[in-house]
This record gives sequence, structure tokens and C-alpha cells, in this order.
Amino acid sequence: MLNFASMLRKLLLFGAGKSASYLINYFIGKAEEENWALTVADTHTGHLRERYAGCAALSISEVSADDEASCMQLVSDHDLVISLLPAFLHIRIARWCLAAGKSLVTASYVDAPMQQLDAEAKAKGLIFLNEAGLDPGLDHLSAMALIAELKEKKAEILSFASYTGGLVAKSSDSNPWHYKFSWNPRNVVLAGQGSCARYLDNGKYKYISYPRLFKHTTRFDLKENGIYEGYPNRDSLKYIRHYGLENISQMQRGTLRGEGFCKSWNVFVQLGMTDDSFIMETKSPVSKKEFLNSFLPSFKGMEPEEKLRQQLGADIDDEILENLAYLGLFSDREFLTLKEASPAGHLQSILEEKWKLEENDKDLVVMVHRIKYRHEGKSYLLESSLVTEGENAAYTAMAKTVGIPVAIAAKLILNGKIPEKGVHIPLRDYWYRPVLRELREYGIVFKDRITIE
Amino acid sequence: MLNFASMLRKLLLFGAGKSASYLINYFIGKAEEENWALTVADTHTGHLRERYAGCAALSISEVSADDEASCMQLVSDHDLVISLLPAFLHIRIARWCLAAGKSLVTASYVDAPMQQLDAEAKAKGLIFLNEAGLDPGLDHLSAMALIAELKEKKAEILSFASYTGGLVAKSSDSNPWHYKFSWNPRNVVLAGQGSCARYLDNGKYKYISYPRLFKHTTRFDLKENGIYEGYPNRDSLKYIRHYGLENISQMQRGTLRGEGFCKSWNVFVQLGMTDDSFIMETKSPVSKKEFLNSFLPSFKGMEPEEKLRQQLGADIDDEILENLAYLGLFSDREFLTLKEASPAGHLQSILEEKWKLEENDKDLVVMVHRIKYRHEGKSYLLESSLVTEGENAAYTAMAKTVGIPVAIAAKLILNGKIPEKGVHIPLRDYWYRPVLRELREYGIVFKDRITIE
Repeated sequence: MLNFASMLRKLLLFGAGKSASYLINYFIGKAEEENWALTVADTHTGHLRERYAGCAALSISEVSADDEASCMQLVSDHDLVISLLPAFLHIRIARWCLAAGKSLVTASYVDAPMQQLDAEAKAKGLIFLNEAGLDPGLDHLSAMALIAELKEKKAEILSFASYTGGLVAKSSDSNPWHYKFSWNPRNVVLAGQGSCARYLDNGKYKYISYPRLFKHTTRFDLKENGIYEGYPNRDSLKYIRHYGLENISQMQRGTLRGEGFCKSWNVFVQLGMTDDSFIMETKSPVSKKEFLNSFLPSFKGMEPEEKLRQQLGADIDDEILENLAYLGLFSDREFLTLKEASPAGHLQSILEEKWKLEENDKDLVVMVHRIKYRHEGKSYLLESSLVTEGENAAYTAMAKTVGIPVAIAAKLILNGKIPEKGVHIPLRDYWYRPVLRELREYGIVFKDRITIE
Repeated sequence: MLNFASMLRKLLLFGAGKSASYLINYFIGKAEEENWALTVADTHTGHLRERYAGCAALSISEVSADDEASCMQLVSDHDLVISLLPAFLHIRIARWCLAAGKSLVTASYVDAPMQQLDAEAKAKGLIFLNEAGLDPGLDHLSAMALIAELKEKKAEILSFASYTGGLVAKSSDSNPWHYKFSWNPRNVVLAGQGSCARYLDNGKYKYISYPRLFKHTTRFDLKENGIYEGYPNRDSLKYIRHYGLENISQMQRGTLRGEGFCKSWNVFVQLGMTDDSFIMETKSPVSKKEFLNSFLPSFKGMEPEEKLRQQLGADIDDEILENLAYLGLFSDREFLTLKEASPAGHLQSILEEKWKLEENDKDLVVMVHRIKYRHEGKSYLLESSLVTEGENAAYTAMAKTVGIPVAIAAKLILNGKIPEKGVHIPLRDYWYRPVLRELREYGIVFKDRITIE
């Protein structure tokens, strides 16, 4: 077998944002042992130059993903590429990787354009591994380990549900939404748009539209770890086949939020405040109250609270109004700060101020799988959960649980441990065994509880 | 001045669908007088070959818009191009027109890619006239004539609202939705998706989201011509500038439907049944009841009527349930007919069967403008309306009111009557004067009523 570590391997990371901190440290920490070097490419790199001044294993390249020539040169000069950039940029990077003959790792969902590169990647002997972060990523790895174990002992799996949330630790939870941003705020604002969420329930295919998504929640009581609500996430149906669960009667993947979040967020959905498709007309300065009012009818002398009750009826209660008030949406003394933006852009800007993870705040990642199965004539519920807190706003649980799985996956590819080629997500044992094993070193450990049903 | 009619002019029409009948007859009828010849290009042309057998002025070309080489050849061989194809194809045709140096007329909204061709079209001395059909089209022409008249007499225009509907004549109204398809059913199913509807009300910009669009209706009592409801249509704000109404306090464009239509259609919007972004999983055959149930939760033993009341609350009433029942949505004896389709695709297929305009059915076009203005110290409401019935399913009011304005606009361009170049919509007097004058010959006449407020 080749001794890969005897050669210098050059890794290229696109994206130095919120999720990159642990990943960069992972590569730097193992640079000598593994004989690799890391280049980080992003449009903003000031924070890296400060944090990693004098670090020999790290090169920093200030470059935009729109600068095709420079990016292509970077890709050609490295042995493996990782992208933590916004998901829509991955396809561009994947094409550069194809041209230069390099493998790629991302933490994002495989979309149709990425899937279409499968044959070409295979033909060139490359791996394009996607969905290798937290959710999607660690959810697949941990689920596949549980499913393999159950199949091993000939249990019949009846139902599968998996929910994940990037939240805020109780000690840092200082707002009534029980939420602060630990990752890309834009993704939070746009979450759920585009297509119906799809899942399997009682053996039936179910489709939940965006207008109903945040009303359609499931309660999760994780005892000492808190109470959450989950809403369905994207297309769960395709994971029936991915997970080898063709005879299952329930398959649901979802997103966790704190209690009361979803019904309040639903107001934004109903009113169109998450619409990112057009630039709003504004006669500046616009107060936040005027912003809210622009999604409500003109009724002379009626306050927006009253209009909300009248327009959204049962979708409004006191707790929701308090949550909106917390954001300043009833205030004519707080103003929009952006000049030209979509409704979603203005909303994001408001939330970034109010939901900021402060320097010493700790975020929280919660993942829970619920698997029902029959074994030797009895029915069981297996609940497997991960609850992990971040250190501070730079070293978040989110960055850890996204970055370290991605980093380990990249290492496995670099070290020739992965036999598959083409476009993949991490489902096979050669992914989940080593990744889950190494994650234990970082305190990322699932707790299982089995109850007889 | 050139005598254009002394030269043979060759017109090319892309699209022989529901809206083309009057337009084709217009060109054939005037072929000798105007010395022009028409080529109609479409993927399906059988009905034309039958209807126009032996007609020397008409050539028929069976071609797909995907066959770029053949289409480009056709464009090059003609003097002016008209497109009645689905709107997303216009940009492709516009590019062929640019390459071949031909002007273009469409009945669709100007989108950003079309607008971007403005400079190049101008540089080449071409006119790309869009929004030249009924709505958009005749609404602009008739509105601009009224606005010019009011401005002429120094009236101050306070508010403008314009609503249009393609409906079914009372004598052919045989279903509880009061609706039959007189144009592209796909456009009806997808109407309102994409962006918030935008308008001006009481001097404030207002944005109405898709989930609220069909709940946000205005009642129109047109006396002997019936009672309608209107919902806001797309972006009305941009027409403030187009119409030269910068000081107005209300600007609304909207779509008319029969009473009760919108609240019933709202159920499809809420449930996600108009989602066109993914192919549904189906284990065929799927009953219409199962189709409906797939957008509702699994509650054992509960009928979908009950679930609808429970899930949508105040958005459900008996009339709505009757309308859904009329479509067979509670039936386990009626089945989906398509194998692979999006929710919107299946819904369209159900509606095409139930809302078919039968051979001798008459459709109905209703357009109404409401303009409030002050003149010499008094306030007035001007209501200008057009109500016109079709002859039968082939010669519809829709085809007449879309096709004849497009045809006259094309004639004006061909005959050198139009000074403007570039990407336009028909707003200026050299459009509305001759088009409205000639439309009178076809019985397309607005009735005005002025009341003192």
C-alpha cells in the first residue's frame, strides 16, 4: 500500500465563513503528522491573517469565486478541494475540479446539476462527496451506523425520523425566539422555500407546502436537554432508498427550533417577508413598523398588531406579537438599515442585529434520530441523540459538527481509504465507521436509549 | 413616403395555440389589401392544415422552438416575427430576431432578460414590442387613452385600478367555479407564484404574498354584466411610471374571477397543489381522493373534508367543499391520468377535464378601469369597461382580444407607423389611437360611466 503521508498533499478550502474554524484547525493540527498543507480561499480573509499569523501550514488566498482564472489556477495547484461556500457556488467549483482532475468535498445537498456530473467524475476517477457536514452529513453517518446495526441483528425497521437544529445554549439564550445565528443567516431566512417538504407517513407520501410548513410541527421533549419543535425538511422521500429502508412506513427528516419559534416565523411566511425575488420600493428612511405595514392592508388608524389579528386570525397569539415586538417590528423609532433589498434581505438585516451570537455566547447543536423496529416479536423505539455546545462565537458547535466531519472525509479521500468514485453522499461503512470513531475524540458522541413500545 | 403595400411583406407567427385564431384570420383577411403573407410555426399544426386548406396567403411550418437552426432560418426569411408561444420562449426568439435583424411582437410581460436586449435592438433599429395582447396589452392601450384625455383637460388623477378576467359567458357557465379555460391552462394554475403582488394603496407600497393572494380580493359589481372578484396581479408599481402617474395615491392591476373562485383556489395554494417544482411519487393508480390526501395529514378514519376544516380552519366553508367535490377530489373512483407529474401538473390535468370550454361554449372577457380624479374642484369616478363574449371554443373572446391588438400592432410596425425602437410596451398615442380605432370594427368597445364622488 502506498504511504500517502510521505508525499506533501495540498488541500484547498473555498470559504472561510462561520463554519470553517474547526476545519481549518483540524488541518493545521494534523499538518505535520499527515504531511499536508492547507490553502484557504475567500473574498474576506482578514480574520484568518490575524488568527493564523506565522502558521506555516496555512496559505491564504483572497479571491472571489467570480474570478474564474485565479480559482482554476488554485484548483489545479492542489490535490483536493473542499467547498464551504454558499451551495449555489458548488457546481462552479465542481466543474473546475472536473477540468483539473481533483476530488471535491462539500457539506451541501446534492442538486440536479451536481448529480449530472456523476458519470464524468467516475470516468476521471474522482470523488465528489456532498452532504458531508452536520445536516446533511452527520445525520447520514449516524443513521447509517444505527440502521446497519439493526439490519445486522435482523430487526425489522418500521419507521425512521431524524431532526437536527442549530440553536443557542440555554446559558446564552437571551431572546424570546430562543435563536441566534450560528451559521449563514440567509439560509435561515430562505429555509423551506422552493418546493413542498416531502415525507412518508403511515405508508403514504405526504407533501407540505411552504405556507403550511411552520404550522406543521412535531414536539420533541428531550428531557434534561430541553423541549423543541421540528418542522419537515425538504425531500425526505429520496432517503428511503439511500438508507435502504424500502419497506418502511414512516420517513421524516426535519429541522429543530425552540418552542414558539415556528408559529412566529410563520407570520413572515404568510406575509411574504421571506420573499427574495424582488427589490422593495422604499422612500427612506423606512421604520420597521412601516416595513411590517407594507405587507398588511391600509386600514386607517389601525395598528399593525390589530391588522395581524384581523388578517391572520388563528395564526396570531400574544406570544407571537411579543416575538415580533422584540424585533422592533411595531416600532416607528427603529429603521431599516439597507437601502436596496428584497423583503428577505431587510428581514435578514433586522434579525442579524437581534439574533447575533455575541463573542462569548455558546451555540447548541441538537440531533435526534427516532427509529421504531421489531425484533424477535417485540417492538422497540430507539432514540439516538447528540447534544453539543459551542465554546464561543468563533468556535461554535455548528462549526465543529459541520467542519470536522468534512475534514475527516477529506482525509479519508486523500489517504486512499474510499473505493467509490463519482457523486456521492456518505452512506457506506467506509465513511461512517472512521468518521464516527474519530468524532468521539472531539466529544461528538450520540447517546442511545431504547424503550419497549 | 414609402408605399409599403407595394412590396410583399412576410410575417412569421410562432404559436398556433388557443389565442391564435383571430390573429391568423386577420392576416389572411388583409393579405391581398396589405400585400403580405403569413407563416405559422408550431409543433402541432394539424388543425391549421384542415382549417386553412388551399389558403394561398398562409404557409404552415411544423417546427419545435428547440430546433434552433430551422427557427433561425424561418426568422431570417421573414420581415417581422410575432410570438404567442409560452412566455419563457420569447427570449430565445428575441435573440434570433436580433441576429437576423427582425422586429418582434409578443403579448407577454417584459422580463429582465428581454429588457436587457433594449440597447442592442435600438442599435439595430428594431422594435421588440411586448405586452401587446389583452392583459397586458389592451389594458395599457385603453388606460393610456383615458389618462391622456384626463391630462389634456388638466384633471388631477388620484387613483387608478384596472382588472381583467378571461371567464365564461353566463349562457355557457355550467360549473360552480364559474370558470372554463379559454387560454393556456398552465398559466392559470401557476398564476401568482414567484413574487409578492405589489401595488400602491393610500400612498403606501403594498406587498401581498402568494399564500394571501387569493384571500385578498376586491368585489366588482358590474350590474347587468355580473359580479366578480379581483385579486392583485404581479407588479403594479412599475406602471406608475409607465403610465406617467407619479403623484397618484393608488395603483392596482388585478385579475377578475367569478364569485367564490378565489377562496376555493386558495385551498390549492395553501396545500401546495400548485407546486410545479418536483415530480410526485405515485404508486399508480392514484385516486383523486388519495391525491388530495397526500397534501393532508394522516389521521386514521378521518375524511379529507374533515381534515380540510381542521387544517385550514376559517379558510374552508361549504361552498369551497362543493367546488372541490365538483372536481372529484373527494372521490376514490376518479383517478389521476398522468403518470409522472408535479402537483401543478396533476391539478391542471384534473381541471382541463372539468373546466373544458366545449365546442359551442362562449367565453367572456371582462376588463374594467376605475379612475378617480379631480377636475375644476369636483371629484369624479370614471369607470371604463369592456365586456365581450366569444363565438365558440375556437373563436373565443380571449383569442380576439389578445390576437387582434397584436395583429394591428404588427401591421403598424410593418407599415412604418411607429417611430420608437428597442424594447417597448404599447403606451404612446401612435399605438393606442390606431389600435383602439380599428378594434371598434371588431366590436371591441369600452363603455365609460362617470359619477360625481
